[in-house]
Amino acid sequence: MRHPLRTARAWPAHDCSVSAADSAATLAGMYQPRRIKHCRVCGSPVDYRVPADDNRERAMCPACGEIHYENPLNVVGTVPVWGEQVLLCRRNIEPRFGFWTLPAGFMELGESAADGALRETVEEAGAKVEMQALYTVLNVVRVGQVHLYFRARMLDTTLAPGPETIEARLFTEAEIPWDQLAFRTVRQTLEHFFADRRRGVFGTHVGDVG
Amino acid sequence: MRHPLRTARAWPAHDCSVSAADSAATLAGMYQPRRIKHCRVCGSPVDYRVPADDNRERAMCPACGEIHYENPLNVVGTVPVWGEQVLLCRRNIEPRFGFWTLPAGFMELGESAADGALRETVEEAGAKVEMQALYTVLNVVRVGQVHLYFRARMLDTTLAPGPETIEARLFTEAEIPWDQLAFRTVRQTLEHFFADRRRGVFGTHVGDVG
Repeated sequence: MRHPLRTARAWPAHDCSVSAADSAATLAGMYQPRRIKHCRVCGSPVDYRVPADDNRERAMCPACGEIHYENPLNVVGTVPVWGEQVLLCRRNIEPRFGFWTLPAGFMELGESAADGALRETVEEAGAKVEMQALYTVLNVVRVGQVHLYFRARMLDTTLAPGPETIEARLFTEAEIPWDQLAFRTVRQTLEHFFADRRRGVFGTHVGDVG
Repeated sequence: MRHPLRTARAWPAHDCSVSAADSAATLAGMYQPRRIKHCRVCGSPVDYRVPADDNRERAMCPACGEIHYENPLNVVGTVPVWGEQVLLCRRNIEPRFGFWTLPAGFMELGESAADGALRETVEEAGAKVEMQALYTVLNVVRVGQVHLYFRARMLDTTLAPGPETIEARLFTEAEIPWDQLAFRTVRQTLEHFFADRRRGVFGTHVGDVG
């Protein structure tokens, strides 16, 4: 997961799994409208107004006319599979420090969704994988994100966790730490994966995470 | 399509279909790194540096420490189908004024990809549709976008094009104006659609558009 500061401060990296204990923190992490105060082009204070030919308020610069749009971001990751096992990473960064996740992070400019998912898999786990089909597309509307997970076939079991990962290891279905998963999209993706594996058919699952 | 100024100026709305005549204009429309000059929080001039624990240059504020990330955006739309016909809209805005497109636009905060695709279909064509499955996920790396198209079943043929559309009309496969399509993701999506319809099987297609 890149953007460590962003994930901790300005923008929640993910939908956090909500328990009674952390629901308040999760709600506080909702995307913040009106967080643009100054124009990125000229530095003048912006106003929030509805531009001509638009139907939503945007941060507009009264000095230079720049309009600042804010849109959902993509989080891209993989379900790395080795035989009966799936690779998870224990997070060394906030949010959800110490919880388990599939390797994933924000998609960057200059890459496709699959490129980004592969990059995160290398950065977070040091895993060698062959990318397979797009597996889940999960909207996390509350935080303005879309999470896209691809299935990936591990080529060997060599792992080299990066600085954002405490440890990376393989889990059978019975071993998955369901109550220690970092994000609901990880849970949903794993639930789909094990159900589909039993059926022997992997489609592409699209859904929303509340 | 919302964000008319953005599409015309700051960020290309789409991958444009490249012909000999417009290839230069298309290349000029590539996403522009280093276009953030001032901090959105405090207005100070930013520096492009690699933050601690990161591996890419970001616009960083030397005064308040804010890090500004720039990431790909999603464009969401539909393939509205009425019997043997597909609905296209003729664009009343740049880029690609006068060319034909499937209804689509930038995904907004507060909506899922399907929500956004439905909204654009209403805004651009005034069409009443029932949303169906996610159909194409096409990376347009050159402009930092991912285009997601959903199939949609038109409920009637009543249309009410919005201000961004010159006209909206139904086309059979033989009538599709292939040389007057606005964007390559529209072309690819339509090509998949007619091929899949002949086979009688609609999957989810993932790919890259150069």
